[in-house]
Amino acid sequence: MKRPHHVMSAAATDVPAIEQSIRLKTYNAETLSAQELRQFLARPRIDFTSILQKVEPIVNAVRDRGDEAVKEYTAMFDKADTQNVCVPIESLPAAQLDKATQTAFDVAYNNVRRFHEAQHTESISLETMPGVTCRRLTRAIESVGLYVPGGTAVLPSSAIMLSVPAAVAGCSTIVLATPPRPDGSISPEVLYCARKAGVTHICLAGGAQAVAAMAWGTATCPKVDKILGPGNQYVTAAKMLLSNSEAMISMDMPAGPSEVLVIADASAKPAHIAADLLSQAEHGPDSQVVLLALPDTDLQAVQAEVDRQCKALPRSEAASSALSHSCIVQVADKEQAARISNLYAPEHLIVNTSDAESWLPQLQHAGSIFLGPWTPESVGDYASGTNHVLPTYGYARMYSGVSLDSFQKKVTVQCLTEEGLRLLGPSVAHMANVEGLEAHKRAVTLRLGLEQ
Amino acid sequence: MKRPHHVMSAAATDVPAIEQSIRLKTYNAETLSAQELRQFLARPRIDFTSILQKVEPIVNAVRDRGDEAVKEYTAMFDKADTQNVCVPIESLPAAQLDKATQTAFDVAYNNVRRFHEAQHTESISLETMPGVTCRRLTRAIESVGLYVPGGTAVLPSSAIMLSVPAAVAGCSTIVLATPPRPDGSISPEVLYCARKAGVTHICLAGGAQAVAAMAWGTATCPKVDKILGPGNQYVTAAKMLLSNSEAMISMDMPAGPSEVLVIADASAKPAHIAADLLSQAEHGPDSQVVLLALPDTDLQAVQAEVDRQCKALPRSEAASSALSHSCIVQVADKEQAARISNLYAPEHLIVNTSDAESWLPQLQHAGSIFLGPWTPESVGDYASGTNHVLPTYGYARMYSGVSLDSFQKKVTVQCLTEEGLRLLGPSVAHMANVEGLEAHKRAVTLRLGLEQ
Repeated sequence: MKRPHHVMSAAATDVPAIEQSIRLKTYNAETLSAQELRQFLARPRIDFTSILQKVEPIVNAVRDRGDEAVKEYTAMFDKADTQNVCVPIESLPAAQLDKATQTAFDVAYNNVRRFHEAQHTESISLETMPGVTCRRLTRAIESVGLYVPGGTAVLPSSAIMLSVPAAVAGCSTIVLATPPRPDGSISPEVLYCARKAGVTHICLAGGAQAVAAMAWGTATCPKVDKILGPGNQYVTAAKMLLSNSEAMISMDMPAGPSEVLVIADASAKPAHIAADLLSQAEHGPDSQVVLLALPDTDLQAVQAEVDRQCKALPRSEAASSALSHSCIVQVADKEQAARISNLYAPEHLIVNTSDAESWLPQLQHAGSIFLGPWTPESVGDYASGTNHVLPTYGYARMYSGVSLDSFQKKVTVQCLTEEGLRLLGPSVAHMANVEGLEAHKRAVTLRLGLEQ
Repeated sequence: MKRPHHVMSAAATDVPAIEQSIRLKTYNAETLSAQELRQFLARPRIDFTSILQKVEPIVNAVRDRGDEAVKEYTAMFDKADTQNVCVPIESLPAAQLDKATQTAFDVAYNNVRRFHEAQHTESISLETMPGVTCRRLTRAIESVGLYVPGGTAVLPSSAIMLSVPAAVAGCSTIVLATPPRPDGSISPEVLYCARKAGVTHICLAGGAQAVAAMAWGTATCPKVDKILGPGNQYVTAAKMLLSNSEAMISMDMPAGPSEVLVIADASAKPAHIAADLLSQAEHGPDSQVVLLALPDTDLQAVQAEVDRQCKALPRSEAASSALSHSCIVQVADKEQAARISNLYAPEHLIVNTSDAESWLPQLQHAGSIFLGPWTPESVGDYASGTNHVLPTYGYARMYSGVSLDSFQKKVTVQCLTEEGLRLLGPSVAHMANVEGLEAHKRAVTLRLGLEQ
């Protein structure tokens, strides 16, 4: 999953490698052709065919052998023994967190809850013609499965981002799956957030086996209708496979490596630009980081800050690896920057300029946008209120991030009076006739007494 | 794709086959176990594995050879020669329709437009904490592909249902694909509706090759971001395959055979019940038709009307074939009926009872609901204003029908003031620390001057 950075190597400003110094490659948008720019912003190819092949036997084993298969994969992949794959949350002991940690997650919980509650849609009711009333009602998806990754990091923030809107929507069964710790237990921070939000079941499993357990249902795990949440390629592949299968589930969106695009002008502090780029880069070597620099941005200072800050990070190696296939593109003006940003359609888009607010009308494709000097990506990752489960890989062109809508569906309703059918019926009968659907026509004409 | 009706044969009331008489099998909900009921309402299995295998070479050929491959498949499957696969709609001559047909489609257009315009969502803006503002904006999906089936029927109504919300959403490129007629032309009714609604391009192709042309883009066909619309198994399989591919598209929902569930009481006229069942059955032998009959419904009269009306239909054979695996379930009361209907999660749900309105709170899963004696399914299929592209196959549990939302995505925005970051920042830094994401923390603490 390396970025094909050879593609543009000829156009890169060749900076002689200084021993140990971390520098981002720099391009000038003016000298790039449309084709070069497109190739250059392209994400690394994900070979889902081979991943799907690895995932399929796992998914099928869980379908056929349920909890036993899940336990075997958990022992194999997570090196953990689990007694029960899935348990009602009330059967678990309360999580013990220190006061400061609890307060921090409570702040996040409150803001996320408030912003997602504001997303409630009113029912629509409209008389399209006299006697013809159309409505749209909102219904919660009954049973949902939330995937919270584990592994290298514990991610209680993802538990909040998924379970809060599920609870606000009114889902009656909320299963949260997350890989167990080596002793078979769940991270107390994840448990705290899950319980606070209203999760009903904890599935102690990760990867494709967790997704399959929720999709098929097992002796201990309720079968869910939809599976949401971030995850690695195996999790995504399992969601894809199962949402095209007899399991009858839907999924939120395909997930790729996380990414940020920062637009900065001369007013942005180089240290802040560098910190924002690094906060994405530290996610892992696959992360995508792009800086669009408006004229007079002090790029030398940005490079120096990237180098200095990166070296001080505990995840310095992952970050510098991500930076090695990331870059700076110098842009001439706002229009060019907005155009390139829309072309890239970033998951996270930071607009660190003095006129940040004025950019919004031009920004068409992004998962979430961060405006101005005081809005690092981290605030949205944790606690501003917006959701951090967002479309990556350019899918922001056509997918929304997770929201209250993700846990609901809309049902339309129509009700005609006799007058309504007398008014609308002849048009319906005529169209049915054009389409050669005689019985459709008769359902109208019989009611209107126009035929027997 | 036959329904597995052997499953419940033991529980069926054995009616000796009268020569030529068409009768629906009748069951009593009281005597069915939960397991029996579930099996009994199960849809026929769709073997997507074998269909995907057939579709994959078509999709790949169109990716590799573009328009030439599309033309070859069109000659092969549609027996039609096409000059250009895709053309700007303004290059086509105006469709000549008689006045009555034009008026009928205009009525449908107006109602559908009105109801979908009412679905516009306001932007949300909320201060979740002092100095922390979160917003949600709506953006049109830039380029969309609409699939309008052809073949046995001409379906201008689907052109309306897809292109009207696309235009209301503000999509800038709207490609409508539909199989050409044998002379290579497009049905004038489809063209009339497409042009009226604001379609920008007509792609004269059908099946997997049309879906692939829109997903990859060809020399004549713009590449789209999302593909929507009903279609046969090949169309659905192509959408599935391409939405998990490098083509980078999303799709509306998986499509299965169309279906209706009618709930009727003694107030419902047997002739109307029969007409509604038949208007679904005439779609084809795969159609699913279920009647839930409350006590005192005159089932003998319903059966007689089904027999009489079915025989008078031009599509009598398809309808009677669909009816052979459809059924009546006698239910004891409203609660039982609602429970079974929710279990089945029908695409179309007709509530033909004297107290139809009062059923709504209990109906959780359905694509679209038709209330009362004057609301046959046909009105929603054509012209009431609701969309007729709806989730089938039980997917109404987790999918909504096509709506304005289908052509839009939501982008969240956050903007913090310095005060906002001072208030929220410490919680963010604490959570980043718990998750071991140091650079996330520093993006906050550096801004707050808490570290260098």
